[in-house]
Amino acid sequence: MLESMYRRLTELFPEMVKLRRHFHMNPELSFMEEKTPATIAEYLTRLGIEVRSGVGGRGVVGIIRGGKPGKTVALRADFDALAIQDEKEVEYKSQVPGVMHACGHDAHTATLLAVAKVLVENRDQLQGNVVLIHQFAEEIAPGGALPMMEDGCLDGVDAIFGTHLWSSIPVGEIGYRTGPVMAAADKFTIELKGKGGHGAAPHETIDSIVVGTALVQNLQQIVSRRVNPLKPAVVTVASFRAGEAFNVIADSATIIGTVRTFDPEVQDLIIQEMERITKAACEGAGASYELTYEKGYPAVCNHPEETALLVKSAAQVIPVENVKEMDPIMGGEDFAYYLQKVPGTFFFTGAGNPEKGACFPHHHPRFDIDEQAMLIAAKVLITAAFNYLQTDEAEKTIATSV
Amino acid sequence: MLESMYRRLTELFPEMVKLRRHFHMNPELSFMEEKTPATIAEYLTRLGIEVRSGVGGRGVVGIIRGGKPGKTVALRADFDALAIQDEKEVEYKSQVPGVMHACGHDAHTATLLAVAKVLVENRDQLQGNVVLIHQFAEEIAPGGALPMMEDGCLDGVDAIFGTHLWSSIPVGEIGYRTGPVMAAADKFTIELKGKGGHGAAPHETIDSIVVGTALVQNLQQIVSRRVNPLKPAVVTVASFRAGEAFNVIADSATIIGTVRTFDPEVQDLIIQEMERITKAACEGAGASYELTYEKGYPAVCNHPEETALLVKSAAQVIPVENVKEMDPIMGGEDFAYYLQKVPGTFFFTGAGNPEKGACFPHHHPRFDIDEQAMLIAAKVLITAAFNYLQTDEAEKTIATSV
Amino acid sequence: MLESMYRRLTELFPEMVKLRRHFHMNPELSFMEEKTPATIAEYLTRLGIEVRSGVGGRGVVGIIRGGKPGKTVALRADFDALAIQDEKEVEYKSQVPGVMHACGHDAHTATLLAVAKVLVENRDQLQGNVVLIHQFAEEIAPGGALPMMEDGCLDGVDAIFGTHLWSSIPVGEIGYRTGPVMAAADKFTIELKGKGGHGAAPHETIDSIVVGTALVQNLQQIVSRRVNPLKPAVVTVASFRAGEAFNVIADSATIIGTVRTFDPEVQDLIIQEMERITKAACEGAGASYELTYEKGYPAVCNHPEETALLVKSAAQVIPVENVKEMDPIMGGEDFAYYLQKVPGTFFFTGAGNPEKGACFPHHHPRFDIDEQAMLIAAKVLITAAFNYLQTDEAEKTIATSV
Amino acid sequence: MLESMYRRLTELFPEMVKLRRHFHMNPELSFMEEKTPATIAEYLTRLGIEVRSGVGGRGVVGIIRGGKPGKTVALRADFDALAIQDEKEVEYKSQVPGVMHACGHDAHTATLLAVAKVLVENRDQLQGNVVLIHQFAEEIAPGGALPMMEDGCLDGVDAIFGTHLWSSIPVGEIGYRTGPVMAAADKFTIELKGKGGHGAAPHETIDSIVVGTALVQNLQQIVSRRVNPLKPAVVTVASFRAGEAFNVIADSATIIGTVRTFDPEVQDLIIQEMERITKAACEGAGASYELTYEKGYPAVCNHPEETALLVKSAAQVIPVENVKEMDPIMGGEDFAYYLQKVPGTFFFTGAGNPEKGACFPHHHPRFDIDEQAMLIAAKVLITAAFNYLQTDEAEKTIATSV
Repeated sequence: MLESMYRRLTELFPEMVKLRRHFHMNPELSFMEEKTPATIAEYLTRLGIEVRSGVGGRGVVGIIRGGKPGKTVALRADFDALAIQDEKEVEYKSQVPGVMHACGHDAHTATLLAVAKVLVENRDQLQGNVVLIHQFAEEIAPGGALPMMEDGCLDGVDAIFGTHLWSSIPVGEIGYRTGPVMAAADKFTIELKGKGGHGAAPHETIDSIVVGTALVQNLQQIVSRRVNPLKPAVVTVASFRAGEAFNVIADSATIIGTVRTFDPEVQDLIIQEMERITKAACEGAGASYELTYEKGYPAVCNHPEETALLVKSAAQVIPVENVKEMDPIMGGEDFAYYLQKVPGTFFFTGAGNPEKGACFPHHHPRFDIDEQAMLIAAKVLITAAFNYLQTDEAEKTIATSV
Repeated sequence: MLESMYRRLTELFPEMVKLRRHFHMNPELSFMEEKTPATIAEYLTRLGIEVRSGVGGRGVVGIIRGGKPGKTVALRADFDALAIQDEKEVEYKSQVPGVMHACGHDAHTATLLAVAKVLVENRDQLQGNVVLIHQFAEEIAPGGALPMMEDGCLDGVDAIFGTHLWSSIPVGEIGYRTGPVMAAADKFTIELKGKGGHGAAPHETIDSIVVGTALVQNLQQIVSRRVNPLKPAVVTVASFRAGEAFNVIADSATIIGTVRTFDPEVQDLIIQEMERITKAACEGAGASYELTYEKGYPAVCNHPEETALLVKSAAQVIPVENVKEMDPIMGGEDFAYYLQKVPGTFFFTGAGNPEKGACFPHHHPRFDIDEQAMLIAAKVLITAAFNYLQTDEAEKTIATSV
Repeated sequence: MLESMYRRLTELFPEMVKLRRHFHMNPELSFMEEKTPATIAEYLTRLGIEVRSGVGGRGVVGIIRGGKPGKTVALRADFDALAIQDEKEVEYKSQVPGVMHACGHDAHTATLLAVAKVLVENRDQLQGNVVLIHQFAEEIAPGGALPMMEDGCLDGVDAIFGTHLWSSIPVGEIGYRTGPVMAAADKFTIELKGKGGHGAAPHETIDSIVVGTALVQNLQQIVSRRVNPLKPAVVTVASFRAGEAFNVIADSATIIGTVRTFDPEVQDLIIQEMERITKAACEGAGASYELTYEKGYPAVCNHPEETALLVKSAAQVIPVENVKEMDPIMGGEDFAYYLQKVPGTFFFTGAGNPEKGACFPHHHPRFDIDEQAMLIAAKVLITAAFNYLQTDEAEKTIATSV
Repeated sequence: MLESMYRRLTELFPEMVKLRRHFHMNPELSFMEEKTPATIAEYLTRLGIEVRSGVGGRGVVGIIRGGKPGKTVALRADFDALAIQDEKEVEYKSQVPGVMHACGHDAHTATLLAVAKVLVENRDQLQGNVVLIHQFAEEIAPGGALPMMEDGCLDGVDAIFGTHLWSSIPVGEIGYRTGPVMAAADKFTIELKGKGGHGAAPHETIDSIVVGTALVQNLQQIVSRRVNPLKPAVVTVASFRAGEAFNVIADSATIIGTVRTFDPEVQDLIIQEMERITKAACEGAGASYELTYEKGYPAVCNHPEETALLVKSAAQVIPVENVKEMDPIMGGEDFAYYLQKVPGTFFFTGAGNPEKGACFPHHHPRFDIDEQAMLIAAKVLITAAFNYLQTDEAEKTIATSV
């Protein structure tokens, strides 16, 4: 049955390309998606799939009920674009000035639509149900996943799978990882308040720049000394702004940055130490501060059983040696929330191909993918869903022991 | 003779006030002075004084030739205003939006004009000549003093005296100091170039903020360790700007500040150490930099003999206990250049009086003076000029030994 | 056959305890071991095992040739003690003042001797050979492993297994890990040379303490900014010594520390950055330095196939849920060298038991183990050796896929 | 009369040299002086001077009552030596291993004894009294001055003069200064307590070295930012000691240093800021500390009238151009205490002469003086004492106005 579905997906590849390019030419910013979800809903509805629109705001959820009883597995694709000017020279270039699908969500969507079509066509033999989660607003926290979950998109779902097309992995490969695979990505802002004054009279001031620069130096200790060296963590000060004139001591400084972690305990530790270090840096000079710490998406933490199943599934689609364990990625994803509620895995589908210009990093103005990646992603997703639904408890145990 | 000149100055006080308020209501920015020098030149000309306009650009120089042969002494007043919005509520408030005499140069000018009138009236008894230097553009380096000197304003001058009305000294007092009395005020700019990148991948970047903040910390060592503790010096970083987004490591940082010194050797040492420290901070991280060091006015360094003469002269005008040795001031003045060419002294005339609203620091939007200070300044200047010209070599030796 | 060997090991447990306590009471320092290797050699010889003493200096190597042809597997136990005063109150307390088996090598040795006895007794059914490597001087680099290898201890060996009894793992558990499991542990020494002088005249000196403390701060950047956050690394300054008198600026500082890494590229990067940062810190102040970087043992890097075999073997001895993947350990081990030459794995045998006082960290004056751990270690070692030798290529493939 | 006293002092020069060399060969440490005060007391007694021994412990005070009524002036010389091994190659080299007159107190004593002899010989013409203060223990705080004062050495004294022979001033010159001439020299000790641990597990520790080195960096801000740049100040960390082993994170650090100031308000500010910075540095890392600040001698602050008198007196002994105003010296002196109670001045007598080997700094193992300096010092002291006693109120006013 998988083989026939693979053949069908191959037949549908031109349609996938067409869909993807349509989305690519008509990108919509996070939380402002209108035409994209309408197109998705229309496509799914025309397939005869039960569709719910406006889920959690702008999400679209379809459900394909299998011909046989069984579990329910969800597949997710996000569909928002970015505020980046498309600088590629291709005919499917973005038609919207300053907005661009620079992260591949257009392809995710086209892939999942083709998957839906094939699954519908094979509905009778499905041993359970497949939920199609078309998510809005992945790019900007707080993201679309949470409101869609609150609006019931995971109700009755037993497991979830999702993929990201990835330009730094060559097309033809799949990257997987058990446990943390994408980081929690947080933002912090420190408004430091000293006391300004004449550049020639430092003793009458509280020099915000001297306090703030010492603070930045001390923040280095969080990663170098206070976090378990076996736990990856990043504390980056990305912006430091203080002072205008060359001869006036700055009365305040604004320090902004990001924190990346995989482990919530490490995240909590960093918040605590950042507060402690900032407080001390200010008190040591009589300055004051306001520290705002905004948690972004939590770490994407893949479940071992579903990851093992995904590995097995991918090896049915591509040569096993191209299914590779990967290092975690320090970027964030709100797929993390789904995995906090149901088991599942988030994997990476190689989409890089310098010969086709797919050699720029994500969020780059010339970002592109090798569209063949969509076919591979579709096959792996359909295989994973199929395998998951077919798996009885006995089989599951075996799979796990792998 | 001095007594009669004092009386005459007292008579002229209302005229001084009128003149000062006229200038106050019609302030002109440095290097853009037009009406002010014209008014001055007209006033002096009407007194029958030999006047040269456009000296060094916009300066006005008058010469009063005494009835008896002798030396030549110069008196200087500056006449430019500042780009500050006048926020005082007085009837003589600035009529020019955004421009204001917030440093007292209006009063310097009015004072010197009254001095000129009285000297002219007593010309016959003058044992030598008095040069009146009305200087443009003191507030902004490179200033008006140098071009006026290049245009001959000090030719034939044996000594020079100047004063600054000073709001933090109470009216009725005179502040003097031998040696350095105002600092050399320099500007430096460090353009630091690292390598930007994703906030989650510091190892692929050269973090300009981490390099730059360490640099600011290390610059503290210049004053704390490398300059002779007996030599006053200030190194202030007044502006630090780097990075825009919260999750992008900054590829560059701009660090701007000021250096204040009284001793050219200390100034040179600081330039050398700043270069050394900046170079090392960058090399330690693979960053690069461009350091621009702009020397401002040199330190104002008063000569002992002329300062002693000034002290004696001031004690003829106000009670001796109100003639006070003062601490040096960390601000700068291009009077420094005159003193590099001829001996002289630059003293401070108290102009502060909270009861009259003269309680704000210089360059403050509500800065004002007690106008009585003009009368005192005029008397002290005329006394110093008179004493200087009368002094024969024998007397001079005695004055010095004081 | 394994079952009977387990029973025999259980019978030998009292002998193991006796042997371990004998070694415990008679500890010998690294590179000074005399009686310990003599005892080992005598024990093995009495068993009829072919023994070579003085291997690489002080090592003892025995070989048990099986009754059937096959591969050769090595088992290793180290036997040196530490310069620590035994502070336990037990009857088998160290009899040597200031020397103590505070790391469990006594138990490693006793375990391997019992394993040897049982293997000899079952020699006929052995499908291949077992090499017993009793290693001296593990505690102090450059260690005994390298000279023993140079002296042929691994000649003809196809794979190697070793274990460390570990007090922070509860007795009854086995810890394993593929890839890096123990860190490369290096030492660095920075001799920083400034210029001393009077505490009141910093400008005439190069203040070694100010330079050195800035250096320590900058070294924090190595881990916080320059190493890939996914690669564990530690840079610790453990000693900073400079200056004697309270009023004399120190002319030099000695900074000593350790670096821990799992990846040789990270190790090389750290060496490079440490040099770069130290050079810059000194040049920024006119100081000089000598940086000595002594590489210790490389990271212990377990091979996947042998680790899989070990996991399977351990699960035959203890419940599978007690065979646990562990985090890497930041400490070092010269077992690393064996694994650079032949495949194998180094695993950890739980030996902690607070009820028996086995609750102190390794190298603690009151360190002790639950001696039951020896029995488990012996069973797992013997199983791993047996499994390894029995494994034909087909089986091996299966084992690997686990 | 002064002229005849000068001649007499010149006659006594060989005796001064002999006395000085005797003391030089028999140095005694501070608070351990026995033979030196005995020798002094014996010498004075033999002159018929009223002598009190054991003043304040080990001091010797003589009083010469003049033939005419008048004021009382004190002259002070200190007599303790240092714990330094004499490395000079001269016949009068120290005979006591490890103890040396490396600061010139031997010469101070010999000078004052000669002065005493001459004054006694001219007692009849003295218009008032001269108190000879031979002080013990100047080198080590709390010093001998305070206990001698408590024991009455200044009772009835109207003014005091003292001098230090100074090797960095050429013989033949006198250095003077009104106001602060020597610094307050304090000691601070910071015992920093972190939490030790394994060098590979920084996150389980509070790294005393990282905390302590950041602290040293932050202490630089006291001088660079928090003290008025016009007020000389030094904060020197002279000793930093932490950690033993290369792989054990230090649990504590000891930081010792000195502070030099001339102004008690600056001293208080530094104490406050040091406490604040240390507290913050520790709190930022969870460390604790104990800061001990030991005030040493206060600044030596010369009085203007007595300094003016000294200048006039010195100009009677050496050419006026060799009587030079000097920069303050950052070292300390307990002469400061005398000047807090009675007016006076402490001046410096040039004693440097490279041709005679007098070219090493004070406290150097090869320190020596040009002994001619004693003759000059004696003449100036006797002149100052004479002038002080002869001065009637009218004269005093004139002297002051100089």
